Amino acid sequence: MPENDQVRISLEEVHRLTKAALEANGASHENAEAVARTITAAERDDCKAHGLFRIPFYVKGLNDGKVNGTAVPETQEVSPGLARVDAHRGYAPLAIRVGIEGLVEKARANGIAAVSIVNCYHVAALWPEVEWLAERGLVSFAFTQYMAFVAPAGGTKRVYGTNPMAFGWPRDDAPPLVFDQASSASSRGDLLLHHRDGKPIPPGWAIDPDGNPTTDPAEGLEGAQLPFGGYKGAALALMVELLAGALIGAPFSFEATETDPREDMPPLGGELIIAIDPTHFHADPQSPFSHSEKLFGRVLAQEGTRLPSERRYAARRESISSGILVPSAFHMTLQEMAAGV
Amino acid sequence: MPENDQVRISLEEVHRLTKAALEANGASHENAEAVARTITAAERDDCKAHGLFRIPFYVKGLNDGKVNGTAVPETQEVSPGLARVDAHRGYAPLAIRVGIEGLVEKARANGIAAVSIVNCYHVAALWPEVEWLAERGLVSFAFTQYMAFVAPAGGTKRVYGTNPMAFGWPRDDAPPLVFDQASSASSRGDLLLHHRDGKPIPPGWAIDPDGNPTTDPAEGLEGAQLPFGGYKGAALALMVELLAGALIGAPFSFEATETDPREDMPPLGGELIIAIDPTHFHADPQSPFSHSEKLFGRVLAQEGTRLPSERRYAARRESISSGILVPSAFHMTLQEMAAGV
Repeated sequence: MPENDQVRISLEEVHRLTKAALEANGASHENAEAVARTITAAERDDCKAHGLFRIPFYVKGLNDGKVNGTAVPETQEVSPGLARVDAHRGYAPLAIRVGIEGLVEKARANGIAAVSIVNCYHVAALWPEVEWLAERGLVSFAFTQYMAFVAPAGGTKRVYGTNPMAFGWPRDDAPPLVFDQASSASSRGDLLLHHRDGKPIPPGWAIDPDGNPTTDPAEGLEGAQLPFGGYKGAALALMVELLAGALIGAPFSFEATETDPREDMPPLGGELIIAIDPTHFHADPQSPFSHSEKLFGRVLAQEGTRLPSERRYAARRESISSGILVPSAFHMTLQEMAAGV
Repeated sequence: MPENDQVRISLEEVHRLTKAALEANGASHENAEAVARTITAAERDDCKAHGLFRIPFYVKGLNDGKVNGTAVPETQEVSPGLARVDAHRGYAPLAIRVGIEGLVEKARANGIAAVSIVNCYHVAALWPEVEWLAERGLVSFAFTQYMAFVAPAGGTKRVYGTNPMAFGWPRDDAPPLVFDQASSASSRGDLLLHHRDGKPIPPGWAIDPDGNPTTDPAEGLEGAQLPFGGYKGAALALMVELLAGALIGAPFSFEATETDPREDMPPLGGELIIAIDPTHFHADPQSPFSHSEKLFGRVLAQEGTRLPSERRYAARRESISSGILVPSAFHMTLQEMAAGV
């Protein structure tokens, strides 16, 4: 898109627009603030699939009456190391924030702890929570299921979600080491973008409704996505279903999809977050982190390598200083939503 | 191998031979018993790479003076949810057994707990410990690094180990759902077997010493193995290094390999095991497991699918009733070792 069809806005403006659009459509201050933080972080790091483009989708959920915009997340301590946050059918970001704030304390006291987020809509990217925990010195994992789009190993029909898993590791003089990756070969969004742009998809991403390999994005969208790396990726997808579903009492991807098959609004979901305080294992609390720098140095000493999240952090540096580009027409839509039109 | 060059022995005999061979070479009763349990479980489940074929390797470590055959693992509680077991340079199985016995109690009390195993030699397959924990109602993960054989994403030189990750989930009327998978495309053993048999390796397993893709197993053994599933498998390999290395104070694969580059004996390693008691999240302690059966049923309803570990359990049923086949010449070697010859 030529730059003159786009408008450059600051991250503060991204935050303001998002918050205003949600508040104008019935979300409470706290919920709008939490969603705005999530969307701003996504735009800041050039993760467009979780960015401004989601605002109409968030607003639709509120207007539809499906999502509770004034939900107050409720935390229940279920054991010394475990807590559950019930989002009461609100959007996920506020419940996640409440959950990770409690998790920090529990992980520091016990050495390891976990929190479940249940009854929430639209768990977005997982990297914000593991990065936030890493900034507080904690190693963490996050898992979430999603709509059933992915075939199991050896099968041809959708059972699993794209089921991402994220991991965060604190660093001293650099942003945390973070990855957040789907257990499917591609995200749903990648498939949709290829379809929109009329581009063939790489082999291995999807099968058609008859179970045959396809490079046609339309066939792939109708058929099933494939796990990454064959049966090993499928095992991870299965693990994520169990952790973010049966373990915490949330629906599996296929159950959530059967209850609510609309792709334009998210089904009810859940998330499991585990945090470990590494200092308990060490006399010198710095030693795990000075040790890990040796590994990172060894990896980066090879030409052509980079650490997970480096691209995201580069985008962040850029957007913090220069803002981001938004298509002008879409920017007008957002302004109208923010004005409650 | 024709069956008449082989001898059929019972699993009890596998256990007896292993234990006797280790005791005849200086291992204590407890250490010999723990290694025998590991080797017997591997033969029982047709995981030959961790079976009888390892006995000369275990014996060599003892005779070399490298491994402490009479080590008494020592447990230190480092926080309410974390413990560390120092194997005192003994073989891993006894320390792991001590570790998981303590872990059960901690996970039940706290809801989530973890144990590190450090200063141990040769962490074998990880599925025995996650299966054992699942039989006690716990969901668990295990991670271990190994010798540096695997190139990082975008790189061409060895940094990571083959770095497996295992996961276990309890089932009511079936053996636990378990997977145990390397973050490399193939195990080291698979590569060695292709080399021994003069068979080309599949594309994607390895690169030659110049960093070019190869299907020649000799070149692959000299070069570097590749992660499974590209950069996503590499991210898992990196995560395992951090969890089983820096987090718990054990060496990274590349450090262990530099300290002791011999491939015929294992380097010093570590393992992290995390266990979660799902009952804390549920009013009815059965509900996570009745729920998970719905997912397994949905997967298995598709033709061509199977759950992870099904092959292992099938092999187990067979070997429990019929024993296993061992090459006759190797059986004689083992008998001599067991007799202390």
